[in-house]
Amino acid sequence: MGILAFLQNSLTQICILLSPIGGALALLIAWKIFKVLRDAESGTPEMRTVAERIRSGAFIFLSAEYRLLLPVILITAAVLGVTPGLGGRTATTFLVGAICSALAGLVGMNTATVANLRTVAAAKMSGEGDALIQAFRGGAVIGVVVGGLGLLGIGIFYFLLGDERQIHHLAGFMMGASFVALFARVGGGIFTKGADIGADLVGKVEAGIPEDDPRNPGVIADNVGDNVGAVVGMGADLFESYVGAIIASMLLAATLSAGDVETLTIFNGQAETLQRYRGALMGVPLVLALIGLLSSLIGIAKVESMRGIEPKHLLRQGTIVSVGAFLAGSFVFILLSSVSIFIWVAAFAGAASGIMIGAATEYFTSERPVAEIVHASRGGPATNIIQGIATGLRSVPVPITGIVFAILVANWAAGIYGVGIGAVSMLATISFTMCVSAYGPIIDNAGGIAQLAALDGEVRGVTDRLDLIGSSTAAIGKGFAIGSAALTAIALFSVYSQAIASPEGGLLSLNSPLVIIGVLLGGALPAAIAALTIAAVGKTAALMVDEIRRQFQASPEILSTGVGANSDRCVDIATKGALREMIFPGIVAVISPVVVGFVFGAGALGGLVIGTMLSGVVLALFMANAGGAWDKAKKLVESGAFSKEGRGSLLHRATIIGDTVGDPLKDSAGPSMNILLKLVSVVAVVIAPLL
Amino acid sequence: MGILAFLQNSLTQICILLSPIGGALALLIAWKIFKVLRDAESGTPEMRTVAERIRSGAFIFLSAEYRLLLPVILITAAVLGVTPGLGGRTATTFLVGAICSALAGLVGMNTATVANLRTVAAAKMSGEGDALIQAFRGGAVIGVVVGGLGLLGIGIFYFLLGDERQIHHLAGFMMGASFVALFARVGGGIFTKGADIGADLVGKVEAGIPEDDPRNPGVIADNVGDNVGAVVGMGADLFESYVGAIIASMLLAATLSAGDVETLTIFNGQAETLQRYRGALMGVPLVLALIGLLSSLIGIAKVESMRGIEPKHLLRQGTIVSVGAFLAGSFVFILLSSVSIFIWVAAFAGAASGIMIGAATEYFTSERPVAEIVHASRGGPATNIIQGIATGLRSVPVPITGIVFAILVANWAAGIYGVGIGAVSMLATISFTMCVSAYGPIIDNAGGIAQLAALDGEVRGVTDRLDLIGSSTAAIGKGFAIGSAALTAIALFSVYSQAIASPEGGLLSLNSPLVIIGVLLGGALPAAIAALTIAAVGKTAALMVDEIRRQFQASPEILSTGVGANSDRCVDIATKGALREMIFPGIVAVISPVVVGFVFGAGALGGLVIGTMLSGVVLALFMANAGGAWDKAKKLVESGAFSKEGRGSLLHRATIIGDTVGDPLKDSAGPSMNILLKLVSVVAVVIAPLL
Repeated sequence: MGILAFLQNSLTQICILLSPIGGALALLIAWKIFKVLRDAESGTPEMRTVAERIRSGAFIFLSAEYRLLLPVILITAAVLGVTPGLGGRTATTFLVGAICSALAGLVGMNTATVANLRTVAAAKMSGEGDALIQAFRGGAVIGVVVGGLGLLGIGIFYFLLGDERQIHHLAGFMMGASFVALFARVGGGIFTKGADIGADLVGKVEAGIPEDDPRNPGVIADNVGDNVGAVVGMGADLFESYVGAIIASMLLAATLSAGDVETLTIFNGQAETLQRYRGALMGVPLVLALIGLLSSLIGIAKVESMRGIEPKHLLRQGTIVSVGAFLAGSFVFILLSSVSIFIWVAAFAGAASGIMIGAATEYFTSERPVAEIVHASRGGPATNIIQGIATGLRSVPVPITGIVFAILVANWAAGIYGVGIGAVSMLATISFTMCVSAYGPIIDNAGGIAQLAALDGEVRGVTDRLDLIGSSTAAIGKGFAIGSAALTAIALFSVYSQAIASPEGGLLSLNSPLVIIGVLLGGALPAAIAALTIAAVGKTAALMVDEIRRQFQASPEILSTGVGANSDRCVDIATKGALREMIFPGIVAVISPVVVGFVFGAGALGGLVIGTMLSGVVLALFMANAGGAWDKAKKLVESGAFSKEGRGSLLHRATIIGDTVGDPLKDSAGPSMNILLKLVSVVAVVIAPLL
Repeated sequence: MGILAFLQNSLTQICILLSPIGGALALLIAWKIFKVLRDAESGTPEMRTVAERIRSGAFIFLSAEYRLLLPVILITAAVLGVTPGLGGRTATTFLVGAICSALAGLVGMNTATVANLRTVAAAKMSGEGDALIQAFRGGAVIGVVVGGLGLLGIGIFYFLLGDERQIHHLAGFMMGASFVALFARVGGGIFTKGADIGADLVGKVEAGIPEDDPRNPGVIADNVGDNVGAVVGMGADLFESYVGAIIASMLLAATLSAGDVETLTIFNGQAETLQRYRGALMGVPLVLALIGLLSSLIGIAKVESMRGIEPKHLLRQGTIVSVGAFLAGSFVFILLSSVSIFIWVAAFAGAASGIMIGAATEYFTSERPVAEIVHASRGGPATNIIQGIATGLRSVPVPITGIVFAILVANWAAGIYGVGIGAVSMLATISFTMCVSAYGPIIDNAGGIAQLAALDGEVRGVTDRLDLIGSSTAAIGKGFAIGSAALTAIALFSVYSQAIASPEGGLLSLNSPLVIIGVLLGGALPAAIAALTIAAVGKTAALMVDEIRRQFQASPEILSTGVGANSDRCVDIATKGALREMIFPGIVAVISPVVVGFVFGAGALGGLVIGTMLSGVVLALFMANAGGAWDKAKKLVESGAFSKEGRGSLLHRATIIGDTVGDPLKDSAGPSMNILLKLVSVVAVVIAPLL
């Protein structure tokens, strides 16, 4: 080996080794930021009391969810453990993956319910800029924890299982994360909108009291829901995509032929060094994730340093800085390492496609399309809904084109391994993305606290202004989550197709009626899950409505004085409703790939993965973007942009109806699609050796 | 050859020969029924005047559409004619296919605008039973013409091109039918809902005059729209599926190996008789279509003979009789013919799946799900919409399972040729299906004439009751059209995959990133077309609104006396709007497969076909069934089933909003999906030799 090759190899190995260490350090940094946040001004005793009620409600839900989850996880681990071909190692990675995801959820919930209070306190004491920073810090903690835990967990297993014959056990890690994400997303989605709609129906519509009014016993549950759905759910979703993309790339590297390894590294064909270079390719996804984590930290620091700028620009600049730093950092690493620069091209394609998807979502949920919805709403609720549906449908092709671009370029540059790398780099700056996504619900909660603690209108004005940006960033986060889920599912599908080892791909050919059957069933699955989720929201909301009505009737003084509203019972009802209702869709999602695989065979299961991915992506984009656009249209009317027609006008009422329709789509059914399509693909990967 | 084989062969040949003759005879029968219908009582001069205005409006649209279509057809034929590998024969079949479809549309429009008047006249003179029969006869003429033209056209070409090396030119016939269907469905869909929504917005909402009030200048256009969309559009759609399924099966037979021919016929391996048995397999789809046509005539005769029974049961019994006769007839034929009885199993699977899809659609658009929507509507428009969306999504898996069942059984019985046969037999009784589908809009129009001619409330009561059944049968027709379109597209896809001759199917393997790219782009295409169509409806409606407002302002006496309303201008505006707005989606639909095929290759085009099929089916089922359920929920409230809350109640208003939202989905965007997915697959088949 020449000196250059030695240096390149050493650098690569060192960087891989640094990955789990970097993950651990990131957790320390998150802890530091959290301490700063926790020690910030926390407002008046009233505010603290309200925040504490939201916080305890959130933990009631989370602990109930985890208690329900625990036996499912343990039984699944046991099943994996006794299955020939999988065994104790897959069971172990499964357990650790599930624990990491649950831990990320716990930290996320804890942070969000600390940050909401600090945000409203800052809004009260020192104004918009400082409030933004507090909300942003909350997001930063969550984002860095999500990234750090993923890197640490996978990094350790890379060294424990680190050769190509063992690495397939890592699929268990992703499957563990998927199980937790399923519960977090579906259950959280049902909770958040069940509580929201239930509280609104009785409070705003029947009793005629404003949103977030302390007299409404359902309001705490509504505020809990923002944390449960948008923070924990989104965190679990992105965490799953993140670890899925990294693991898929590793598994793809493990099955590359010697010729492919030669193309993608400085491997010169000496058989005894093949394992080293294959190991490098398996490690590169980890290093990219590490560089992404560092770049996210740079982006976070940049936002911290730029106070006083228009919030919208601030968050956008932070995104540019973090993605730019990732692309520069990964370029330097790959240039100096033992792998081909074409791998960077694949990474570039993934990151570019991520930005494209984010920009498309932003356009459809904030620019002209929203103005068109407001315009159409002059014709009443029906034209508002029709225009929103058209907007949702119209938003589908652009992100899909982004994914197609990523696949085309990444595959050209580095084959199917490149597609995996593209997915990794789309998700590499997850810490920053998650930070921006969590910002919205934290602000939303801060506004809720302001209202519940009866702070003056000025504070609410600050949180409302920040919330308008928050709902944009939340929508962008959703679009990004869908795009990355699709790319991750495709990367996992490549792993699956390698695993079932179909020579010439004949087993997975669309020529085969079994594959077509799989595709068709896959297409139906997301529609079924979406329908079940929406119905579950309706049922949970109905239970909330009954309870709030019961309280108003039993103690009429609640409406006059606010005394006696039992919000814990509402939280309890939403919790139980959400957990009960998520069981059936959850079972359908997990069982479908197993049944199709064992009944119709590996080809049909492959079809199922692709069909679910396609139909899931189309429905998810439609629901997220229609919902986001309806939400924004309502807020636009409320912001006073249409001077003559503000709150209470017919126009406003039409946009409220649109927003209400969009809520279960964008916050319950839509997000479930992401989990579904990844879950189906990871289950396929795990059971592939058994088919 | 033994005597038995000789008899079997002779019978097969004779039956094939009878097919085009049967098609021609069916056209004569249709002419006979039409004469009976035409000579029936046609009511008062006022009624005739109104009907004449609708009729002339309908022909204005149709002739404008055909004038626009003519150069497109001629240019495409010229391009096909000069393309190496296709040439004059494909150009000829293309032209004839287009002419047959256009002719079917012309006859359909002519018949529907004769039948609507006879129906309302019968409702006035002799009551519900007779009115039903007149509407039914109108449908029968249209159905028999659609079936007869298809059989005649394809049958003649079978004899002209009848060997396996020439038969591929028949794809042109299907492509011609597709082109006309695209214009008829997309243009008709935009016209019908643009006129409907435009007339309602100014008339019902702004001016406060009832539906179908003669003072509204847009009302004639609205009634024209029912014919344009639901009769001509649906006819072109089903005609396209019908000829597509027959042609796909013929082409599949042409590429069967000698071994497959041996399995599927009494061929005994003697090379010199291979062509005879292959010819039999190529002819069987024609014979099945002939048996289906005869069975439809039996079903029609049965309905005629059973006057006085509850209309709902009448139509259902007719369906059972015609499908039963088809299954019995095809069993006898196949038993006595030179082909295997397993082909009948495939036919059975297709017919059973068609019934399953129809039953599922009926359930979701009339039974408990509709009651649930009404129940949800008590919470206002938002909960009405959410419940309708959930219903639409929930309706997706069952029909897809029906298609999967058909593929599984048909493929088990007779391979991919069996899948083609399944599609043929699902569509074999098209004449009866079309008859039932056309019944709805004819009744609807009859109601419009009753209102416009100011007939007394009793007549309108009769047409309203019949209309309630009509909207169910229309919904079932839509579900059936989607299911058969999907199966036809899959059969065409099989032809495509044979044509690109990929050994072991590797070219079409989901392993290949290019196939995945095609699948993704295919998934995006239906969403884009749906969004464009919905937007086009909105634009056309806006033009109608402007015109009607202008007329009301220019001549205020219109609103008091009704004199001076210029309905021709409204028809003209809706016509021009529809034709202008359909060009862009039409071009996108036609160009997409060509671009994907030539840029990304045959694998990507295969992916595109499947992606479009899947996403198209999911969206089409969602839109058709959500729209159908909303429509039915409104009609249920209006029918007085909820005694306390009838017309004008808050409940009614919520259901009206749902119905308005559903209109462009079920009548414009949804039906366009059927055409899109067949068009993409037939274009793929036609250009396959060039890739």
